[in-house]
Amino acid sequence: MTTPRYGPADAFEAPRYTGIRTFARCPHVRDLDGVDIAVVGVPFDTGTSYRVGARFGPEAIRTCSTLLRPYNPNLQVDCFATQSVVDYGDVATTPGDLPGSIAQIAAQLEVIVRAGVTPIVLGGDHTIALAELRAHAAVHGPVALVLLDAHCDTNDAYYGQRIFHGTPFRRAVEEGLLLPERSVMAGMRGPLYDPGEWERPRRELGFDVIPCEDLRELSAAEYGQRVRDRVGAAKVFLSFDIDIVDPGLAPGTGTPEAGGLMPYEALRYVRALAGLDIVGYDVVEVSPQLDGPAGATAVLAANVAYEFLGLNLLGP
Amino acid sequence: MTTPRYGPADAFEAPRYTGIRTFARCPHVRDLDGVDIAVVGVPFDTGTSYRVGARFGPEAIRTCSTLLRPYNPNLQVDCFATQSVVDYGDVATTPGDLPGSIAQIAAQLEVIVRAGVTPIVLGGDHTIALAELRAHAAVHGPVALVLLDAHCDTNDAYYGQRIFHGTPFRRAVEEGLLLPERSVMAGMRGPLYDPGEWERPRRELGFDVIPCEDLRELSAAEYGQRVRDRVGAAKVFLSFDIDIVDPGLAPGTGTPEAGGLMPYEALRYVRALAGLDIVGYDVVEVSPQLDGPAGATAVLAANVAYEFLGLNLLGP
Amino acid sequence: MTTPRYGPADAFEAPRYTGIRTFARCPHVRDLDGVDIAVVGVPFDTGTSYRVGARFGPEAIRTCSTLLRPYNPNLQVDCFATQSVVDYGDVATTPGDLPGSIAQIAAQLEVIVRAGVTPIVLGGDHTIALAELRAHAAVHGPVALVLLDAHCDTNDAYYGQRIFHGTPFRRAVEEGLLLPERSVMAGMRGPLYDPGEWERPRRELGFDVIPCEDLRELSAAEYGQRVRDRVGAAKVFLSFDIDIVDPGLAPGTGTPEAGGLMPYEALRYVRALAGLDIVGYDVVEVSPQLDGPAGATAVLAANVAYEFLGLNLLGP
Amino acid sequence: MTTPRYGPADAFEAPRYTGIRTFARCPHVRDLDGVDIAVVGVPFDTGTSYRVGARFGPEAIRTCSTLLRPYNPNLQVDCFATQSVVDYGDVATTPGDLPGSIAQIAAQLEVIVRAGVTPIVLGGDHTIALAELRAHAAVHGPVALVLLDAHCDTNDAYYGQRIFHGTPFRRAVEEGLLLPERSVMAGMRGPLYDPGEWERPRRELGFDVIPCEDLRELSAAEYGQRVRDRVGAAKVFLSFDIDIVDPGLAPGTGTPEAGGLMPYEALRYVRALAGLDIVGYDVVEVSPQLDGPAGATAVLAANVAYEFLGLNLLGP
Amino acid sequence: MTTPRYGPADAFEAPRYTGIRTFARCPHVRDLDGVDIAVVGVPFDTGTSYRVGARFGPEAIRTCSTLLRPYNPNLQVDCFATQSVVDYGDVATTPGDLPGSIAQIAAQLEVIVRAGVTPIVLGGDHTIALAELRAHAAVHGPVALVLLDAHCDTNDAYYGQRIFHGTPFRRAVEEGLLLPERSVMAGMRGPLYDPGEWERPRRELGFDVIPCEDLRELSAAEYGQRVRDRVGAAKVFLSFDIDIVDPGLAPGTGTPEAGGLMPYEALRYVRALAGLDIVGYDVVEVSPQLDGPAGATAVLAANVAYEFLGLNLLGP
Amino acid sequence: MTTPRYGPADAFEAPRYTGIRTFARCPHVRDLDGVDIAVVGVPFDTGTSYRVGARFGPEAIRTCSTLLRPYNPNLQVDCFATQSVVDYGDVATTPGDLPGSIAQIAAQLEVIVRAGVTPIVLGGDHTIALAELRAHAAVHGPVALVLLDAHCDTNDAYYGQRIFHGTPFRRAVEEGLLLPERSVMAGMRGPLYDPGEWERPRRELGFDVIPCEDLRELSAAEYGQRVRDRVGAAKVFLSFDIDIVDPGLAPGTGTPEAGGLMPYEALRYVRALAGLDIVGYDVVEVSPQLDGPAGATAVLAANVAYEFLGLNLLGP
Repeated sequence: MTTPRYGPADAFEAPRYTGIRTFARCPHVRDLDGVDIAVVGVPFDTGTSYRVGARFGPEAIRTCSTLLRPYNPNLQVDCFATQSVVDYGDVATTPGDLPGSIAQIAAQLEVIVRAGVTPIVLGGDHTIALAELRAHAAVHGPVALVLLDAHCDTNDAYYGQRIFHGTPFRRAVEEGLLLPERSVMAGMRGPLYDPGEWERPRRELGFDVIPCEDLRELSAAEYGQRVRDRVGAAKVFLSFDIDIVDPGLAPGTGTPEAGGLMPYEALRYVRALAGLDIVGYDVVEVSPQLDGPAGATAVLAANVAYEFLGLNLLGP
Repeated sequence: MTTPRYGPADAFEAPRYTGIRTFARCPHVRDLDGVDIAVVGVPFDTGTSYRVGARFGPEAIRTCSTLLRPYNPNLQVDCFATQSVVDYGDVATTPGDLPGSIAQIAAQLEVIVRAGVTPIVLGGDHTIALAELRAHAAVHGPVALVLLDAHCDTNDAYYGQRIFHGTPFRRAVEEGLLLPERSVMAGMRGPLYDPGEWERPRRELGFDVIPCEDLRELSAAEYGQRVRDRVGAAKVFLSFDIDIVDPGLAPGTGTPEAGGLMPYEALRYVRALAGLDIVGYDVVEVSPQLDGPAGATAVLAANVAYEFLGLNLLGP
Repeated sequence: MTTPRYGPADAFEAPRYTGIRTFARCPHVRDLDGVDIAVVGVPFDTGTSYRVGARFGPEAIRTCSTLLRPYNPNLQVDCFATQSVVDYGDVATTPGDLPGSIAQIAAQLEVIVRAGVTPIVLGGDHTIALAELRAHAAVHGPVALVLLDAHCDTNDAYYGQRIFHGTPFRRAVEEGLLLPERSVMAGMRGPLYDPGEWERPRRELGFDVIPCEDLRELSAAEYGQRVRDRVGAAKVFLSFDIDIVDPGLAPGTGTPEAGGLMPYEALRYVRALAGLDIVGYDVVEVSPQLDGPAGATAVLAANVAYEFLGLNLLGP
Repeated sequence: MTTPRYGPADAFEAPRYTGIRTFARCPHVRDLDGVDIAVVGVPFDTGTSYRVGARFGPEAIRTCSTLLRPYNPNLQVDCFATQSVVDYGDVATTPGDLPGSIAQIAAQLEVIVRAGVTPIVLGGDHTIALAELRAHAAVHGPVALVLLDAHCDTNDAYYGQRIFHGTPFRRAVEEGLLLPERSVMAGMRGPLYDPGEWERPRRELGFDVIPCEDLRELSAAEYGQRVRDRVGAAKVFLSFDIDIVDPGLAPGTGTPEAGGLMPYEALRYVRALAGLDIVGYDVVEVSPQLDGPAGATAVLAANVAYEFLGLNLLGP
Repeated sequence: MTTPRYGPADAFEAPRYTGIRTFARCPHVRDLDGVDIAVVGVPFDTGTSYRVGARFGPEAIRTCSTLLRPYNPNLQVDCFATQSVVDYGDVATTPGDLPGSIAQIAAQLEVIVRAGVTPIVLGGDHTIALAELRAHAAVHGPVALVLLDAHCDTNDAYYGQRIFHGTPFRRAVEEGLLLPERSVMAGMRGPLYDPGEWERPRRELGFDVIPCEDLRELSAAEYGQRVRDRVGAAKVFLSFDIDIVDPGLAPGTGTPEAGGLMPYEALRYVRALAGLDIVGYDVVEVSPQLDGPAGATAVLAANVAYEFLGLNLLGP
Repeated sequence: MTTPRYGPADAFEAPRYTGIRTFARCPHVRDLDGVDIAVVGVPFDTGTSYRVGARFGPEAIRTCSTLLRPYNPNLQVDCFATQSVVDYGDVATTPGDLPGSIAQIAAQLEVIVRAGVTPIVLGGDHTIALAELRAHAAVHGPVALVLLDAHCDTNDAYYGQRIFHGTPFRRAVEEGLLLPERSVMAGMRGPLYDPGEWERPRRELGFDVIPCEDLRELSAAEYGQRVRDRVGAAKVFLSFDIDIVDPGLAPGTGTPEAGGLMPYEALRYVRALAGLDIVGYDVVEVSPQLDGPAGATAVLAANVAYEFLGLNLLGP
């Protein structure tokens, strides 16, 4: 086994707060040669319906990722020992232009996916998932969605806007990017426009929807099994919306819904997804200007992305 | 079934952050005709023993209530489909005058209760519960109390002040406004002046007192049953002090006690009260200047009041 | 002289923190009959190039306006004695749609202007000035601009977006809404893309541009005279971008430039504009999630709008 | 010259952040023997009309006073070399009881004044000035007032409350505690209920009132001379309300008025009062929960109190 | 039974926010005569590897300890009825000098321990535990360690620094201050440098190490029993690092690891230690400048120290 | 004239908040070939006597530097048109080791200076100036110091620590790195240990010391002339301590002294230094965890460094 080309800076040479802020102190590299995982920022929040600011999510997650050390004791893997990880930087976007930006983001991500590199995307609001799915489907064909989120994000439109942070997964189904019958949405909670917000994705679109109060009844192992049973051998896009966690613990987000998961619960559900064939990951909706001074929301998001590194190493 | 006269603004016409801040975007109406529920602010905090600022509680809860959508998926009701809800605005108070303000508040609330309208009060410190109980008892006679709170609030006096935020339920018993033998207090925790702080309300006043560590041993269903068994057919006043939740999650409050409930637990206990004959509700002790920038405490308080809407619809 | 139909709530009846938050505690009224001044919120920030959040500007300014009392001792007028002032609420917008929203806003404001009512707009990012100018020009023909701002906002486009918060006054000139030869821009500072950022509005568009370091050399009286000399009898649109003030004193804004005015200086320059024939006002770019806990930026913005009330009463 | 009995802890023995928080690291002493100056906290805010929290003012000022070193380079005195300074701790108050608390505070302060010790009071809202004046007048007879404040605090009542933070100096005149013809109020600004707010203290009560915009036209020396000319040989009570400073710079206060002094201006005006025969001092209306994380308001208040030490040493 | 010489101030005489800030409002006393427990601040953070500021931990914990009342309802003891508790103030340290400060601290603490007084230390970063252990071992010989912490703190060195906040327990073993075979470390979580971070303290040093995910599987009673079984009759040093709690709930700390305990869980584990022969306690790594405005982290730390008072009273 | 090899990213391609955070969006480059200016972070704060956290200064200044555009309108130069600017990243340090870190930093900076590259250092506490001066003197011989700071930083020791943030310029004189007779210190204010704090640097060391109250009497031009007269043709090290600005405006710093400069004043004094032969620059003592949510202190520091770019281009 050869040493991966890229990995984090040596923490014994200088303190972890030393240096330009990149994800987990990995090098900032745009050349995809010799790269297994590219962490990519998508600083975009024009699709936000309530509190804005997720354009600064990548900045905050990188800043709070410097504590991430190599060994994941829960998944029992060294995240950097056998895979090469870089911080690719951010993709270009056009604030104020939703369809244009989604096309821009998709095109830039597709370059990464086509190069055989797995992207871990740091959002940005959830609209960007549509761009991610376009990139993945262009290379892999339609994929399964595993979503951890307080919302289904399958509404049709907001004030006439069909590309918005509450609609990406409906658009993705319409565009043929997803395999709903292989997909699982979990963590939904909060007041709804109508009961159809959870029923339509089930009946019209074919997703498995597990509301938060039902998810809590499942152990992490049970949840993992339910997902694996449904996903089967399909390629998976794993999307984690930070608002699945309670807004008292992860306040830095745009659509807070009271009564969410505790961080340890959320991390357990993520780890339970080991064994899937995941081709892309994201953690979205981190709005740091609403976070507290310690950046607890961004710290958590960085740790979610860190679990992704472990899942990727474990593979299907 | 006719459509209720009042309800929230249409969220498909303009974003939820559009417009004057009223509770859940319901109209600000003072005429009680055609109203089922009046959300009423009581911006009063002269009765506070430690950190002040609950006079801005109504402002913050309204601000953070704009995300509340109609359908409550846990109680499975559309909160606005069959009941007419308005934001009545605030009642007048006299800062610095405890007995005077309580009399003022009671008189103003009594107008609402007499009109057959159910008030949901947004506090304000807990002293105002005495005014609420006077208003309810004036119309309904003595009522049962269902209290979710970190404190019993049955002390006798603070530095000689007999009307204070730690005394309302003792005063209410003395004034004949309550039925202690039908009442349940739950969630008590934190250091006490002496063991009598929990024993006196039990032995002297006749309340059922469930400390937080005992409450946690009860499922929501068990708690709900225990309350229903005790309350019976009595009319109920339901009071929720936000300090029942852990101060790490709901920091915007005046008397923080470490080790409280998680928001999802608190919301479950509230929902478990479905089936009672509740004539009045409050959520109190929100002090927004101590909250974080995302207003997590006020978001939670708004959601508690939202659960009240559902409980009211379900009725006894 | 008859008493105006609308004015602020009586502050001797209940404390200033009582009641639904409207500008200066004036009534929330949509019917324009009997109204002289309508304070209007435009909660829109899709045109923001850097830090977002001005969609919550109207909320914050209203919240921090409750201290505003009737008598303006600097302009020596009672702001509510002879003019009728209401809080009109917010206009509808479409987040994520710049051209659409500007058209929407313009149409809604035009109703107010046509009714002979003077709007004081609470922004929102500066893109909305284009909508305001469309409304004013539709009724009054092209107007003079008096701008207090750290930026000229006369760029051509951002990433291809021609309607954006750095472009409204170029667009307005192109659309024939402005009289640049009657207009004065003052307060410009901060690093520039190129020297043309200040030269193009002068040479290409015909504005008078007074950089901040030059403005400071002018007393308020000198500045006022320079504006009056240039404006003459033209009708005026007065626009105040809060970023003219130093970001240490007014941190709640999206494009902070070090070295700005002190609040007292900014207020003096506003008051110095007495005697102009102003048909519309705005205060924009207040982003409260970046403000400190006391809301100093919103307090200042509320006071700027309060000075507008005085200017309006004094008239031309 | 003997060394004073009490003074600050040695800063060369341990860092300034070492130890129990007392004012300027002076010892906490209740025995007044051998004491020249007693710094006294009055944690009281029941008289607050808007944003509360000044009860935590003494805590915050002490916390931010630890940087105060002995030598005052502007007044050119060693503040601790020849006078004995202690932190007396706080006086007892009764939250929720205005007249009672003012009587309590006055009685406790009178003990200090009678002992020949000069009190520097850390507020607390401005209501407490009435208590201070009662204590001083009881010993010295009526005194001159030198007030630096954004408000005159000579209103008659708030919602019927005659003892409140906007009324102390009217009450003091009525009680014969003040010599208005020897007194100067300066720094007044902000919207008024009516022009009489500045005229009544002049005409009815006999004070010299210098609004903020006029004060700014005076150099510190000119202000000092104007005060000395008016005060003459009278004994003086010097009261500094932190809201004289701009709320962008001193946000931690309850009644913010835009457009205030810069800190260096305020400190200059304080120092300009050297040469008066001052028998008591206070700095009031510091509400730390509204301050930023660095406590800039409390740092400034601590420095104002430090200037008082210098003024006291210089004497009349 | 005689009344203890020292205890908290009477809370019925003046509100809890009255007075100089000492732990639980106990008197600040340096004379150890008649003292059972001395609460001691160690304001030191030179050993911090990431976010600094724990030098202000003692200040913040004292400030947030004023709500602590005498009776501990969970342990069912009056914490001040039979033991004499004082706030000893802080020990002197030398910022920037790690070995020197540890020696300084040890010497000062040894005076307390030799006097037969039990210290409860308020940190300060975790480096100070080495000083505490030196003091205890000097008097009692090597002691058992009961550690609740997200980290083992048994690394060898950081950038060559062998005395640092990640190394104290390795140094303590090397210095013969500890009985690893009698010691239990619990709560470890977060990314590791390598799996040896948890294995080396087990295999090389002989500790029992219970990672957080395993700890959660233990009830408080089970954890308590496991500790008691291992500790036996040994004298115990109990150290509580606040970072064992989730950084969403206790953000004011220097090395945040996502996914920690809830406060109520942490408090339960502490209480479960009743019955041990504990000779010293600390609560460390509180960095208040990273805390939210309500100081939730410091409130929790104050309550941890309060549980220590109860454990001490119950004794072995 | 050829185009410089390095300069900021194109802001018309993607919004300024896109990409890894480097100073002014310049590339992160360690190879010094073709570089004129290297911006270097020194994340070190072990020398801090009061509030810590300046180790995160470089992070915050980079984050807040993304708004910096090329053209400096006050100095009338395009900062990137003819000089090549890179972000060199951070140098390695050893937290907890003062002499070792200063040696480490000096060695790393000397490499830059020897390469003929001008460093702009982002601190870090002021101790690092000693390292900077060692590097400059090693190449250029002793240099003149132009210091803008609230403190002289010429004390001898703190608790025995001779290398500390209050001592660098005394050490530098002792080590023969400085030309005091060519040096000017300005901006000193705040309480002093004794009058010698300003007199000793004058008399013992030979500096020109201009206290803040005297500096304010000088126009920027007068200050610039005074410096140029004294410096003559000497090579200059220009050091800007952010605490020269008032802590209400620049709260994110460790040793706040009330009554400082306004940002526009500070920037004017910096610009007035055009024409000197400056070989190195720094901006120090930015502690972002004490800053407000908008990072006003870091925004200002970034603009100070931006003025350095202009000064460097103008040259001697």
